This record gives sequence, structure tokens and C-alpha cells, in this order.
Amino acid sequence: MEDMIPACDAIDKAGYWSVECWGGATYDSCIRFLNEDPWERLRTFRKLLPNSRLQMLLRGQNLLGYRHYEDTVVDRFVERSAENGMDVFRVFDALNDIRNIRRALKAVLRTGKHAQGTICYTVSPLHTVDEFVDMAEQLMELGCDSICLKDMAALLKPQPAYDIVRGIKERCGEETRVHVHVHATTGVTMVSLMKAIEAGADCVDTSISSLSLGPGHNPTEALVEMLEGTPYSTSLDKDLLLKIKEHFAAVRPKYRHFESNILGVETEIFDSQIPGGMISNMESQLKQQGAAQRIKEVLAEVPRVRKDAGYPPLVTPSSQIVGTQAVFNVLMGRYQVLTGEFADLMLGYYGETAGTRDPQVIAKAARFAKKEVIRHRPADLLRPEWDNLRAQAIGLKGCNGSDEDVLTYAMFPQVAPKFFLSREEGPKSVAKDPAAAAPDNGTKPAPAAAPTPVRTAVKYDVTLDGKVHQITVTPA
Amino acid sequence: MEDMIPACDAIDKAGYWSVECWGGATYDSCIRFLNEDPWERLRTFRKLLPNSRLQMLLRGQNLLGYRHYEDTVVDRFVERSAENGMDVFRVFDALNDIRNIRRALKAVLRTGKHAQGTICYTVSPLHTVDEFVDMAEQLMELGCDSICLKDMAALLKPQPAYDIVRGIKERCGEETRVHVHVHATTGVTMVSLMKAIEAGADCVDTSISSLSLGPGHNPTEALVEMLEGTPYSTSLDKDLLLKIKEHFAAVRPKYRHFESNILGVETEIFDSQIPGGMISNMESQLKQQGAAQRIKEVLAEVPRVRKDAGYPPLVTPSSQIVGTQAVFNVLMGRYQVLTGEFADLMLGYYGETAGTRDPQVIAKAARFAKKEVIRHRPADLLRPEWDNLRAQAIGLKGCNGSDEDVLTYAMFPQVAPKFFLSREEGPKSVAKDPAAAAPDNGTKPAPAAAPTPVRTAVKYDVTLDGKVHQITVTPA
Repeated sequence: MEDMIPACDAIDKAGYWSVECWGGATYDSCIRFLNEDPWERLRTFRKLLPNSRLQMLLRGQNLLGYRHYEDTVVDRFVERSAENGMDVFRVFDALNDIRNIRRALKAVLRTGKHAQGTICYTVSPLHTVDEFVDMAEQLMELGCDSICLKDMAALLKPQPAYDIVRGIKERCGEETRVHVHVHATTGVTMVSLMKAIEAGADCVDTSISSLSLGPGHNPTEALVEMLEGTPYSTSLDKDLLLKIKEHFAAVRPKYRHFESNILGVETEIFDSQIPGGMISNMESQLKQQGAAQRIKEVLAEVPRVRKDAGYPPLVTPSSQIVGTQAVFNVLMGRYQVLTGEFADLMLGYYGETAGTRDPQVIAKAARFAKKEVIRHRPADLLRPEWDNLRAQAIGLKGCNGSDEDVLTYAMFPQVAPKFFLSREEGPKSVAKDPAAAAPDNGTKPAPAAAPTPVRTAVKYDVTLDGKVHQITVTPA
Repeated sequence: MEDMIPACDAIDKAGYWSVECWGGATYDSCIRFLNEDPWERLRTFRKLLPNSRLQMLLRGQNLLGYRHYEDTVVDRFVERSAENGMDVFRVFDALNDIRNIRRALKAVLRTGKHAQGTICYTVSPLHTVDEFVDMAEQLMELGCDSICLKDMAALLKPQPAYDIVRGIKERCGEETRVHVHVHATTGVTMVSLMKAIEAGADCVDTSISSLSLGPGHNPTEALVEMLEGTPYSTSLDKDLLLKIKEHFAAVRPKYRHFESNILGVETEIFDSQIPGGMISNMESQLKQQGAAQRIKEVLAEVPRVRKDAGYPPLVTPSSQIVGTQAVFNVLMGRYQVLTGEFADLMLGYYGETAGTRDPQVIAKAARFAKKEVIRHRPADLLRPEWDNLRAQAIGLKGCNGSDEDVLTYAMFPQVAPKFFLSREEGPKSVAKDPAAAAPDNGTKPAPAAAPTPVRTAVKYDVTLDGKVHQITVTPA
């Protein structure tokens, strides 16, 4: 927070439609790494950004956790978030199963806040423009205030961007508010934003240039400039953008040790359909098994597993589930061993997929997991759990008994106990002095300023008053 | 060359329309830093790229040098380049003065090679779409095979890209071949390429992704992907692109010490109109004068100087001429002291500018330089100089007496003598072991491991037991 707070005034006045500042990995990082109460963070942003819509990403029935929650927990989370200052809820499901999104959207609508129904963009023989437009229509029928087309893997090319946005506008009405969210990884999505805007997109997501590109987003200032001379423009103040840029340009080196290896662009993902982060996961799994050399087989196996699983979009958690099963298939024979999560995916416990899942693999999953295939909404299985979660949470030392603390425990049961215990010590900084920060691999920047100390013995010929001496110098 | 030769086979087969591989800074770098004969380089590419059009950038009447050359020297350079294997000559002038381009274009046409007339894109109140289209028309009337719209400063936004290309096609005929060359610096030009293609551009310039972005070009592979689903496509082979990418990804770290500071995008240039490289030049000039803190005044002065000079595009050499004069104006009072080059620019010795130059500053320039204003083509002043250049060149030790050597001397009279002398030693590599490569400034990556060796004799005064000794240290 210490490095975001000084930029808030400029951000609040710059003219953004909304500021995405909470949810997903933010909440997790707060309690896992920063010893910081995520709810306190939200309240701080609310205070420092009085004129801005605060926006969050919500994983539907999973909230910010990794399982399905019972409906009243979902309701409670949305209510508390709205109460603490959240304005715009971008709600998605990894499988695009609308039944996993519905309850959260309804809860948002009850609070009077902005409910944004989200389509995860992916590419497969089944994911046509029409399918995405159908989903938008269903989301709008639920009463959404807007639609987000979310391209978490930078797969959205200009023509489909145009076609989907245009399709939504034509099917749902030109007044339907459409937002487009892309990452920059593949180098084509700035163009996709242009085409989405030409098709009528109302808002697109970018980040300030000094934090942009690579696996992040496209640069805001470039988007502003890009529109000059077109019928489109932004509401942004360029002088304030420059202030924000300069602030984060100065801040960024302190967090260099967290940066991605992807600095330029990566287009192979278009063929492999495998996001970069997923590849590194699989590589480390293979390495642990002493089978690092089999990565190419695994990369070829992923699309097969994805097909057998009914073409889920590859996004957390489906990317991990499919990737790990592909590793198992290569190392131990195809579907000889199933992970519990993959069995659940095959049996419908994450929801419905776009395509039919392979009946033989479903049968194996049922035997392996000793569970039945389900066709209903996964959360329908769950009994009311709030009272139980509350009882467990308030039994933890340091839990303050608030609904917010219960929700923290509900979503991160492994991490919350430790966080409650240490919360009083206050937030920790993970920044490093850029001059001292060591790179975490050979390809990373390390500032040069300081002279390199002599670490080993060095031999010199030294001429002293005309006579040559052989001298060995070692650190004292 | 050692790091380009292994990629040539894939490059030759990948389906590029042409391969820009020679001219401009290439030639200069060969003789100044690499002890490599640039003509031998050209012949090597010719041999290794038998199916490719080789392309070069030619500064019109300046050839690859920094002054105007007499017409027969221009003719000779073009003939020898064609003879040695060059196919496509992209001919431009820094002021867009067509009289400085004409002779070189005519020479290319006589060789039967591809003559590409080039428009330098810039932004000013006078540089309208119509003006650029007029220039294209004039170039086509000279018999050019194609037109290049060249955006060396990454200023070309999508809408003007569309409008200019469309304008050229409508004015000169849809069959007129139009190429678009942009840099990536500002983050908008990938979109400009898309719009240029929609307007009918026949060819756009990119570079392989592992050498792309920053102040370089947009990534080739991303451009290929960007077009999917549109009515446009490239002729490129994706598997070969991947091979080329991987080759240069492995090579690039060896040259890390030459990389630019611009890693992300810079959009301030749209307002200042000052290319990044020019800013660093001015900063170092100010620093030498102990006036580094006056950079903002200089940045504000540049647009005024540019206006007084008739709005030249800011590209080598006009960017340096305008920038240095702006520094002088700030340090010593406006136009109290003129550089010789700025006086020449004001007096017409570089050619005509788009706008009227300020009469008062012209008068000062005439007094300062003791020269008249000229309105004719600068090269008209020059007497035949080939025999004289030849006589001087063959008097140099190591000159082989060929026309190629005379041209090397003609264009780089300071550097050629040293190069001729050492040529026999063969090319030097400037690559560094990436593990040991030191950064050339504080923001650059520096692997910490290797201690910096003492390379030259260093003298110290050393006080040993109270007595001062003069010590010289050299590596053993």
C-alpha cells in the first residue's frame, strides 16, 4: 500500500471509468505475504479514491477461493464487499457455466452496485462467436448492468474481438454496455482493443505504461493516443496519466524480483493454447519427477486432455487441472492415474463444459473417485455452512469475530489462522532496495553502480618505483 | 555475421517480401566497430539468401554519409550496390525534399532494380494527409516501383496511417505498391499497421519477436496472428519464424550491452515531438556544460526551433541539428550563437523544408556563416568529385583500389583509413559472454558474478608504511 497510496489522488482524478483494485490474487497476497487485512485495504482505497468506481474480479460461486461455496456465503461476501466500498463486481466462472455466476450476480444486484457478467474468452472448435453472444444474452437476461469479454490468456485477435462485441450489441441492443479485458502477452491485443472499440465496446482495460506489457495489460497512454483522429476518445487526463506513470516507474524496480520472464511477446500460445504460466507449472512438475525432457510430449498431450474434458477455457483452476493430468498421462500412461480434481472436472463437480466430455474417461473418473456424474449446479450439493464457518473462525486466536474475518477464513482456511495471529504486527513490505535487489535468475536486471568487490585472489604485476613485483590480492 | 549466418537459411525460405540487411548504420558499424568490409557482408547475404530480395535504406543524395554527394558518386554507389546483390533501394531525404531523392531513384531505375520512393512521416501544422499524398504522387511520377511511408519516430497513429495509405491508393491508383515502416516505441503502431493494411498497404515492416519492440519494430509473429479471420494474410511460414525467433532469442543476450533504455513504451514523444535518442543527446550536451537541470527549457525550445526552421521532420541529421541549436538557445540566448549545421539548414544547404523558415533567423544565419541563401538543389553546387575521391582513396594504405573502397572512403573519410589498414585482420566480434556482460549504465542488467578485470595500466599513489609510492598496475 505504501507504494500505491501516493498515486491515489492522481488516479482518482484521471478520469478512469473504474479502478480494478481488489479481489482474486490481491486478497490472497494480502494475507499470505503482506500480513495486511484485505478489507482494510479496500476501505483505504474507498477513502483515497472518493470519486472512482472501485472494481473487483469475483470467481462466481468460488468467490476468491478454490472451491464452491454455499449460496448464503456468496451472498454474505458480496454484501460485505459492497458495504466496505466495492462498486463494480466483475463475475466470471472458469468453465463459463452461467449457473456458477448467477447467485453472485443476483447478490450484487440486490446491493444496487454494478453487476458485470463475464465471458471467459477461449479458442476451440466449439467456441464460436455465436456461442459467446448466446452467453452474453443469457447474462443480460439475469439483469446484468454490463458484459465483460475477458481474455485472460491474450488469445483474442482483432477480428473475433470485433465480431463478438458487434454480435453482443446487435443481439442485446446497442445500449448494452460492453467492456473488453485483454492481456498483452501475444502482442496482438492492442489491435483487438481498437477493433473492439470500432465494434462499439464502451470500455477497455489497460494499465499505466510503466506497469504495462509482457503478461500484463496494454499501456493506457498508448490507447489514448491511438484514438486520435478516430470518432472515439477517452475521458482521461494526460497530465495526470504522466504523473501516475512516473510514480510507478520509480516504484517498479523495488519489486523487480517478482517480475515475469516474459518481457517481449510470446505467440506460440496461439498454437499450443497453453498459457505461459501453465507451461512453467508443468515444467516444474516434470522436473520433480526427473522427467524434464518430456515437456514436448506433455505440450502435445494438453490439447487432447482439454478435448476429453469438453474444451474448458484454460484459466485458474482449469489450467492447472488439465495441465497436471497431461503430466500424469505422459508419465504413467493415458488416464492410468487421475488427479482428484481432474476426476471432479470430468464428473461435473466444477460445472458444465462447452463440449461433451469423453464417456470412457468419465467412467474411469467415477471408478477412481467413487463418485457419480452430476448434471446439476455443483453448489446445489452444499448445505448451509455459514454458522459452521463462523464457529470455526471465531475459535481462532486473533479473529475479530466480524463477518469479514469469517469470510477470510472461509476462503483461505490454511492461511487465515496464521494471518489472524500476526495481524497486529501490521503490514510487511516485500519491496527491496533496487540497488541491493539480486536478480532471481541470470537474465534479470541487476543495477551496475556499485563496484564489484574482489571475491577471489587476483594476481597483478605491480611496478613499484621501477621494479616489477608479482602481487596477489585477497579480500582482507 | 557469425550470429546472422546460421539464421539465413530459414530467413530465405520464410516467405518475406524482402530482407532489409544493409545500408545506413550497418555500413558505418561494419567499418567503425567490426573491422568488416560492408561490401563483403552484402555479398555474403546475396549468397546465403538466394531466394530473397535484399533491401537497403539509402539517404538519397547523402548516400550513407553525412553530406551531399555529387551526382556521379550517387550513380556509382547505386550501380556497385546493385552489382553486389542489392535488390530494393528505399530512398529518402530527411527534409522530404524530392530533389535530394531524384538522382538516386533514377540511378536505381537504370539498374533495373526496385526503386522505392520514401516519405518521412512527421507531425506539424503543415504536414497534412494531402501533403503526404502529394509527395507520393511526385515520387510515382519519377517512375518509382513503390512508395514507402516511413515512420522512424513511431509517431504514426492508426487514423493517419489509414488516411495516408488510402489517399495514395486513390490518387496514384489502387495498383500502386505501398509499404509502411514503423517503429514500436510509442505502443500504437501495431494498430497503425492494421489500419494501413485495411487501407490497402501491400507490405509492412516488422522484426522477429525476439529482436522486436522498444525502439525497434513490431513483432512479425504477432502480425501474422493478428490477421487471422480478416480478409488479409501474410505469406510467412510460422514454423520457420519460430526457428528464426529461437535463434535470435539465444543470440540477443550476447549483445545486451548495446540495448536501449527504452524497454516498455514511451508516449511523451507525441507531445514533445522529440525522439528518445535525441533527448539523450541533448541531455549529454547539457551535462557537459554543467547545465543538466535545464533540460525542460530545452525540451520546450525544440518545437520553437523546429518551427523557425520550417518544420523539418526530426530524423538524422535534422534531429541533431535542431536539438543542438535548442541547447545553444537555452544556454546562450536565442540564436546568439548558431551551429554551422543549423545555419546551413536555415540557408537551404540541406534542401527545402515544408514550411517557410523564419526570415530573421535566416538573416542571422547568413551573417554567421557568411553564405547566401540558396533555393536550388544543394548538390547542384558540387563539381564532379569521383576522380579526386578515387585519388585520395587509393593513396591510403590497404585500399584495394576498387570502386567499393573508394565509396567507403567517400562516405567515411575519417574512419576508412584506419579500416583499410586493419582490414586484413578480419572481422572482430563485439559479442560478450552473457554471463559476464557488463551493463553500460545503472539501469541495465549486470550479472554479479565476474569481477571486472583490469584491462589497461592504472597508476596509483600508494602510501605504504607512511611513504608514498607511485604504482602502476597491469594485468598479469
